[in-house]
Amino acid sequence: MEYKYQLPESEIPRFFYNIMADMPNKPLPPLHPGTRQPITPDLLEPLFPKELIQQEVSTERFIEIPNEVREIYAKWRPTPLHRARGLEKLLDTPARIYFKNEGVSPAGSHKPNTAVAQAFYNKASGVKRIATETGAGQWGSALSYGCQLFGLECEVYMVRVSYNQKPYRKIMMNTFGAQVYPSPSDRTEFGRKILKESPDSSGSLGIAISEAIERAASDPDAHYSLGSVLNHVLLHQTIIGQEAVKQMEQAGHMPDVVIAPFGGGSNFAGLAFPFLHLNFTQGQKIRFVAVEPSSCPKLTQGSFLYDFGDSAGMTPLLPMYTLGHDFVPSAIHAGGLRYHGAGTLVSQLLKDGFIEAVAQDQAHCFAAGLDFIRSEGIIPAPEATHAIASVIDEAIKCREEGVGRNILFNLSGHGYFDMGAYSDFMDGKLKDVAPDKKAMSESLKAIEKLQPEI
Amino acid sequence: MEYKYQLPESEIPRFFYNIMADMPNKPLPPLHPGTRQPITPDLLEPLFPKELIQQEVSTERFIEIPNEVREIYAKWRPTPLHRARGLEKLLDTPARIYFKNEGVSPAGSHKPNTAVAQAFYNKASGVKRIATETGAGQWGSALSYGCQLFGLECEVYMVRVSYNQKPYRKIMMNTFGAQVYPSPSDRTEFGRKILKESPDSSGSLGIAISEAIERAASDPDAHYSLGSVLNHVLLHQTIIGQEAVKQMEQAGHMPDVVIAPFGGGSNFAGLAFPFLHLNFTQGQKIRFVAVEPSSCPKLTQGSFLYDFGDSAGMTPLLPMYTLGHDFVPSAIHAGGLRYHGAGTLVSQLLKDGFIEAVAQDQAHCFAAGLDFIRSEGIIPAPEATHAIASVIDEAIKCREEGVGRNILFNLSGHGYFDMGAYSDFMDGKLKDVAPDKKAMSESLKAIEKLQPEI
Repeated sequence: MEYKYQLPESEIPRFFYNIMADMPNKPLPPLHPGTRQPITPDLLEPLFPKELIQQEVSTERFIEIPNEVREIYAKWRPTPLHRARGLEKLLDTPARIYFKNEGVSPAGSHKPNTAVAQAFYNKASGVKRIATETGAGQWGSALSYGCQLFGLECEVYMVRVSYNQKPYRKIMMNTFGAQVYPSPSDRTEFGRKILKESPDSSGSLGIAISEAIERAASDPDAHYSLGSVLNHVLLHQTIIGQEAVKQMEQAGHMPDVVIAPFGGGSNFAGLAFPFLHLNFTQGQKIRFVAVEPSSCPKLTQGSFLYDFGDSAGMTPLLPMYTLGHDFVPSAIHAGGLRYHGAGTLVSQLLKDGFIEAVAQDQAHCFAAGLDFIRSEGIIPAPEATHAIASVIDEAIKCREEGVGRNILFNLSGHGYFDMGAYSDFMDGKLKDVAPDKKAMSESLKAIEKLQPEI
Repeated sequence: MEYKYQLPESEIPRFFYNIMADMPNKPLPPLHPGTRQPITPDLLEPLFPKELIQQEVSTERFIEIPNEVREIYAKWRPTPLHRARGLEKLLDTPARIYFKNEGVSPAGSHKPNTAVAQAFYNKASGVKRIATETGAGQWGSALSYGCQLFGLECEVYMVRVSYNQKPYRKIMMNTFGAQVYPSPSDRTEFGRKILKESPDSSGSLGIAISEAIERAASDPDAHYSLGSVLNHVLLHQTIIGQEAVKQMEQAGHMPDVVIAPFGGGSNFAGLAFPFLHLNFTQGQKIRFVAVEPSSCPKLTQGSFLYDFGDSAGMTPLLPMYTLGHDFVPSAIHAGGLRYHGAGTLVSQLLKDGFIEAVAQDQAHCFAAGLDFIRSEGIIPAPEATHAIASVIDEAIKCREEGVGRNILFNLSGHGYFDMGAYSDFMDGKLKDVAPDKKAMSESLKAIEKLQPEI
């Protein structure tokens, strides 16, 4: 009876898979906020190395992974694919549940997959430091690790609510040599503006992104780095799904449904896109479910509009499902999912009906997480519990229908730094957080003026 | 260039390896504290299931692992063997450094190897609950996990200093369904006695063991379980070394030296014994180094005497290197190494010159841990940093001598719950803790009266 499927290091993918090549409708272009015209790549050069800008706009199906990056992946990749036999038994379901365990990476999530690649390209471009934001801290830890490997300095703006909830995440980044600041901070103009208006601001990913961009833009030796949303970030993550395709073949069960938590889209895309490639090219009929928190429901309740990627409006306008860049999500524990918008690629795929989305309540997710801990012995990050909640829903449906479908999900990270949240949940202190409908509607209204004339 | 060596699930060992069969001098027998005569196994029956008592005294070389236990091991075993190429580069050493990563287990250390086996045998014996002690929390987490799998209740007495240093470890045990109490507690006669004498007692493993034994002995539906020291515990851990022998063969490098942290002996024995078997039976000349904290130096400064395993004197008298069961080690962060004595098997092997021991200072260990984090991207538990400190010493010696030896060590657990300690170290707040020589000498003197007449 097998519990996990492992590949040798020689099976670490040699190419990133670019879904742009297979999409029937290509995504709309990013626009300059002043002219409302498509931006030219050179506008991004103060923030990103040229290689990454090329990847951002490339339509090549496969992009070669540099050897130096594959060598580092080999420290923890290929990650194992597990069969969750304990959870199946607990749920008494005929479903076969598989999960890809990205929690075994150095920073404890899927994020190092792109952090290492981004650090490599940035080092090659000659900059000395990178500024970035982080929500729950998974991305900040990953980039700290990547920068450390290539001798780059790393400056992290960490959403204040997560900074306070998870002091140990901050220390982890310090052990990797990074500087970490709670955001909004007094180190940037935008941070000071926010602090003046709301001294108690819990922060948001949008605000932290603005701060990091401001720092990078004002320092010729610095670049900016983003942990999700952008095309090149999702591209790097596709090594997850490429491995998983081979491992599901090993297991002898192609998935009927692929499920992943959804913040900006990177772990979802990482697992889903290589399977979606099979739908596009081999006529497979796999379902894909992106799971977002009900307190930040851009996929299920947002609008498909042009919006800024950050709160200050420093980025190009991106076509995305969004709640509006002014929307500040409730202080839920899944800090990595507290983002107002969805990446362009995933937004277009959702719009075109190739993927589905559902929203899950926080307390339901923690209950699912606890079921998983007790049946599988692995503590999932709060972000990952969103996938587990939907996996359990699907597995129960299988039981009720008497059908043994194959479910695959992304265990995007471990929850060792989230024990305080589990404690609150077990003590009955952690409640569902309803979305603030008025704030959503106001922030959506505020971006109507940003739309191009069609 | 390979970074790790993985075995398929079919290579999970089928037998525990019992070194007793190969030892030229068998260990001295445990004695009844009243009669000073060798105890009979039935004396242990209120505390342990018969199967484990048989394993404790067995001289069979190989003891079959139950299928139910191997099935659970398959959730995370075989664990990977890594080549620490990053650390080698940092140290500019010709040494080849390998480590077995036991931190990938459900509880984050090697402890589930025996916890699962012990929970299985206890369940089969018909008890309803198990009481135990824990130091840093690794053992308590592991037994909580094991009990959860077999539907047993679990009651954990956690050394107070660790309980306070690591609240998240306690919560982890709660997520696995266990009850956790800081020790000394007011739930036992012995705990109340200690609290009366020293209301601020930071506790010790010896005290916590006494509390757990007292609880188990007074409850017919309960057994007691120990996470190290005893023969059957070391026996279960030998699956680590059996896997590592095969993985080092894969790597093409048999170790010249095997290094592991030392608390009671279980992770050291687990990795070392199957290689020591090669010395005993195939004439190999592998060195074995047990690394203890300089604040609790039973191997390097203790005496080989009969002593109690716990502070209250509830256990049989065991022949061991000890600092005396009254010795309360300083409140270092490597809580798993704060034990006054060494297991009988390892003590005899040290006495007979088959293994070596060194003591390492706390601050030196954390510096080594930080080197490891920055070069390998894995955060080691404070216990594991003791091995790393000695690995670095050996690797530097290789560089100085211009000899490329093969070094293998046990990364016995991850340090995700120890970020506070790393923070203190980076802030310069964490100092070396010298052993309390007067307390050592007094506690050793106190056990002279326990020795049998020879």
